[in-house]
Amino acid sequence: MIKKIAVMTSGGDAPGMNAAIRAAVRTAVTENIEIVGIKRGYSGLLDEDFIEMSYASVGGIMEKGGTILRSSRCEEFQTTEGRKRAAEILKKYGIEALVVIGGEGSLTGAMLLSEENDIPVIGIPGTIDNDIAHTDMCIGVDTCLNTVIGNIQKLKDTASSHERAFIVEVMGRHSGYIALASGLATGAEAILIPEIPVDYDAIAEKLWNERKRGKINCIVVVAEGVASAYTVARHMEHRIGYETRITILGHVQRGGSPTAFDRILASRMGYEAIKALQEEDFGTMIALQSGKMVRIPLKKVLSEKKKIDEKLIEMSKILS
Amino acid sequence: MIKKIAVMTSGGDAPGMNAAIRAAVRTAVTENIEIVGIKRGYSGLLDEDFIEMSYASVGGIMEKGGTILRSSRCEEFQTTEGRKRAAEILKKYGIEALVVIGGEGSLTGAMLLSEENDIPVIGIPGTIDNDIAHTDMCIGVDTCLNTVIGNIQKLKDTASSHERAFIVEVMGRHSGYIALASGLATGAEAILIPEIPVDYDAIAEKLWNERKRGKINCIVVVAEGVASAYTVARHMEHRIGYETRITILGHVQRGGSPTAFDRILASRMGYEAIKALQEEDFGTMIALQSGKMVRIPLKKVLSEKKKIDEKLIEMSKILS
Amino acid sequence: MIKKIAVMTSGGDAPGMNAAIRAAVRTAVTENIEIVGIKRGYSGLLDEDFIEMSYASVGGIMEKGGTILRSSRCEEFQTTEGRKRAAEILKKYGIEALVVIGGEGSLTGAMLLSEENDIPVIGIPGTIDNDIAHTDMCIGVDTCLNTVIGNIQKLKDTASSHERAFIVEVMGRHSGYIALASGLATGAEAILIPEIPVDYDAIAEKLWNERKRGKINCIVVVAEGVASAYTVARHMEHRIGYETRITILGHVQRGGSPTAFDRILASRMGYEAIKALQEEDFGTMIALQSGKMVRIPLKKVLSEKKKIDEKLIEMSKILS
Amino acid sequence: MIKKIAVMTSGGDAPGMNAAIRAAVRTAVTENIEIVGIKRGYSGLLDEDFIEMSYASVGGIMEKGGTILRSSRCEEFQTTEGRKRAAEILKKYGIEALVVIGGEGSLTGAMLLSEENDIPVIGIPGTIDNDIAHTDMCIGVDTCLNTVIGNIQKLKDTASSHERAFIVEVMGRHSGYIALASGLATGAEAILIPEIPVDYDAIAEKLWNERKRGKINCIVVVAEGVASAYTVARHMEHRIGYETRITILGHVQRGGSPTAFDRILASRMGYEAIKALQEEDFGTMIALQSGKMVRIPLKKVLSEKKKIDEKLIEMSKILS
Repeated sequence: MIKKIAVMTSGGDAPGMNAAIRAAVRTAVTENIEIVGIKRGYSGLLDEDFIEMSYASVGGIMEKGGTILRSSRCEEFQTTEGRKRAAEILKKYGIEALVVIGGEGSLTGAMLLSEENDIPVIGIPGTIDNDIAHTDMCIGVDTCLNTVIGNIQKLKDTASSHERAFIVEVMGRHSGYIALASGLATGAEAILIPEIPVDYDAIAEKLWNERKRGKINCIVVVAEGVASAYTVARHMEHRIGYETRITILGHVQRGGSPTAFDRILASRMGYEAIKALQEEDFGTMIALQSGKMVRIPLKKVLSEKKKIDEKLIEMSKILS
Repeated sequence: MIKKIAVMTSGGDAPGMNAAIRAAVRTAVTENIEIVGIKRGYSGLLDEDFIEMSYASVGGIMEKGGTILRSSRCEEFQTTEGRKRAAEILKKYGIEALVVIGGEGSLTGAMLLSEENDIPVIGIPGTIDNDIAHTDMCIGVDTCLNTVIGNIQKLKDTASSHERAFIVEVMGRHSGYIALASGLATGAEAILIPEIPVDYDAIAEKLWNERKRGKINCIVVVAEGVASAYTVARHMEHRIGYETRITILGHVQRGGSPTAFDRILASRMGYEAIKALQEEDFGTMIALQSGKMVRIPLKKVLSEKKKIDEKLIEMSKILS
Repeated sequence: MIKKIAVMTSGGDAPGMNAAIRAAVRTAVTENIEIVGIKRGYSGLLDEDFIEMSYASVGGIMEKGGTILRSSRCEEFQTTEGRKRAAEILKKYGIEALVVIGGEGSLTGAMLLSEENDIPVIGIPGTIDNDIAHTDMCIGVDTCLNTVIGNIQKLKDTASSHERAFIVEVMGRHSGYIALASGLATGAEAILIPEIPVDYDAIAEKLWNERKRGKINCIVVVAEGVASAYTVARHMEHRIGYETRITILGHVQRGGSPTAFDRILASRMGYEAIKALQEEDFGTMIALQSGKMVRIPLKKVLSEKKKIDEKLIEMSKILS
Repeated sequence: MIKKIAVMTSGGDAPGMNAAIRAAVRTAVTENIEIVGIKRGYSGLLDEDFIEMSYASVGGIMEKGGTILRSSRCEEFQTTEGRKRAAEILKKYGIEALVVIGGEGSLTGAMLLSEENDIPVIGIPGTIDNDIAHTDMCIGVDTCLNTVIGNIQKLKDTASSHERAFIVEVMGRHSGYIALASGLATGAEAILIPEIPVDYDAIAEKLWNERKRGKINCIVVVAEGVASAYTVARHMEHRIGYETRITILGHVQRGGSPTAFDRILASRMGYEAIKALQEEDFGTMIALQSGKMVRIPLKKVLSEKKKIDEKLIEMSKILS
């Protein structure tokens, strides 16, 4: 029986991480498992930056964006030595298992820590990029999308008042999910994602056709992995012959009070992580599949790339 | 090959219905299928209250709550004769198939119309109650939940300032989903749902224990199918010995600009409905399963009750 | 020169109170004045429930609804003896002056405390009722109004989908400001306020006329001081002959993260309160007049009733 | 007695313009004055792009961002000849007076049209810049501020999770009002406005001191008139020695459903404009002063610069 565990958030933060922490802590406490929080991800682990967690210490955090444990990226942990040292620290404190909430890099770190040093870990997918395989959704994606569409919606108000094209740059270095989903949800006239080569001429032609059909507003959503909003604007302006304006949301997309979806998803995942530890389902990631919590080996999760749904791309062409 | 179809919304309205209408219309137009809108659900069908739909006529509606086609409940359609007359009207107008967006009652009507009169139908689950089997989610649920938690969150601000219990009545005559999910997402101290017998003594005791532990705010969420907020308040006040205040959100829960989730879900379902018609998958409902669109026979969907997830109930006890 | 002061929030809480606390504390600290927070208003004062306040202790509170100092109503303080005891406690702790953030009752308490016991006080008008004379706005009103109109707006979505009247009960026992302003801002078809006798027949007739003109939605906003939503519904239903639905927002109206207006107003008032203390403008209330901070004697403020703007009532008849 | 008038929106659009249009139209209709809408501002006037307005045609527009009449900037109207031609067009259509909703440039155009051609005009200040003298607020400012602070608040969530400085560029070419007010309302660590020379060394020092005091988040708000977010980032990075991230909200700031404040302000101004026309208070701008509607000669309004409140600047230094 596990007696003492730790929980941490790592990598880019995502709304809902606090709900996952809260659920993990309260479930652990209910199950008589001692639980400590590790601050600033793997950096804090290596610095022994721990705090005691209790039922009360996670009160009122579910609705908060960000992560109360804070997060960071850590170079030392990317080395075998770093992970070995981390394992020793965990053992020194009597911490028998670790729950890691984070994206691909963070879960890879957790898997390596586990494989190399025999530390039981459970992963929880928390990243706004929605680029983790075998789970229908990651914590933070839903809130991020609502933030993006809320802002694009405002742009559409003014877009209908003037005659301009608006270029909106959203997050997504390797994954076009945020751009595609938010573009679909706002009827954007063009969506540029890293998964598909950009054809500025085709986009310009589409915008011209829309204009001829009488559409006066024009929104182009671009994932940062394709190009910056400025670059896209430069490419478009001389092709379409009218002005463009840009919006770069930046880290606004990582914040905000989590949506109902993210709060519930995160709560379920935090709860399930403790159950998985109790049932010794080590080395797994908690995933959402068809409305249910399942546990998938981290190795399996991390060996695959989540592909973007081709149908969404097809739909985006028809619907806007 | 189908040449002309109709789309309608029926029953209680739900945010996202417009996105489904938009997607169905634009997909139909792209596929060279003529599509008409039927106003006010089955009542409008029986009144021949139709409007032509075009690519442009559904511009700018995705972000709107409610349904541009409006909705209603219709007694005549609940009879075999009513449905026969509806089928004749559809034939008179050369409408070969019907897409119905609505809840259980509306989908049952669609199924009967189809079975009795050989009219091809496709159902799309649109209801804030989330009580339809075989689909992970129905259109409108996500927006409704966010509306509810947004309001409960505000209540928590003031709840922390004073020393009172707040009773919040939410929708759900037969299903406790909204109450359970919103209670979970806000850490409500008690959640009353129709699926579970109410034990006011146990709740009062829990609230007393929370208070002893130092919690100063106290939110009780009750599904309307259990009791009115006033009834719950009366039951609680003399048991807990301090004041209660009530909030009844009412139809506020049916409105609002749809969330990203509802816009995308509805768009996918509207698109898929047209694909299903083209592929002659008649008599099915479009459903979401593990992130994918699937088609389930209406007969199968309507012969089962969607059960509330037992784990959510268990979690709700541990987490708040 | 004043060396040590205290700040409290009292009565019904209002969004923005935290911003006022924050501003008062940080301004005092900057001016080398020691400042303590009194918890739970006059009750906490009589219980000597004080906490030290520092620059850091008010970090991250501006965006929070409610009040970190909490609030309450206190019977003992309503007596001369109670206030005398309060003055003695303040003296015992070396607290030379008091900043009170609250509504009419709380400011009256402050004035009496000051007059009877020679304690310098400064009042800050914080109440969602907007019923305090000589200030253009009170802290919390703007946030409250936005909460109300956000909810009514959602109701209008569904109201346009069905054919019903919606009765919305909002706060305001003696003042119709919230009802009038939110009704104006949402184009409500009828607004019932305590300042004007209700004529249910006239309202029913108006609703009938609107309906004949083709309006399908119908919102009636009623201040709680007039009647409960249930009472209004009962009065309306048999007169208009169609169904009504009710919404009671309750204490939701007191919560929420404060709007920009409330944050800035409260920050300015908190800042100005300290300046007024330094300049020995004792016994005044900080007020907003034409965009500027002014100081009005509490006696003058409390001897007058803020009247509702007749023009707003006239406008509300023309505009909806 | 005036029998026929026109209303237009001009220049940069601002949330609430629709509420002003709605109020002007409904008040005019009630007063038996015929009213036409001019599309696309002065360009539409010169193109004779008019639409009839009625009580019903402005239904459901109050809650919409942007302007249903659209807007534009017009070079021809900036010439005496252009304005003469505009006056002739108005006379040709029997339009006796004009209500212009817009910013400084648009109101100047209205004044010149009136002076040169004896066309009665009434101005309504609608601009998010809040740079018009003699009125406490302009239509659109309040909504804009809430959009900005909503986004900065999200940034603060993630800012507290990482250790970075965030640079947020907001609108304001000549006026720092949006930057100053939103910086104040979010406790930004530094606010850069065109009215004050920038001292990057002083800002860097302040940020260093904050960090030493333990503050982990750091928001710098910059008005576009000072520099772009990129320029500020470049100036800061080598001085502070840690990473920065940028957010450029762009035209998002012009959109959004108007707040309660903007809806009511705009409704009052639209209503008052018609009253001013009836009372032949020509050549005036409707203004808000201490909660009341007043009429100020356009000449007086446009001959002065609205100055930024020095106290707000002082406060911003103390409070963050």
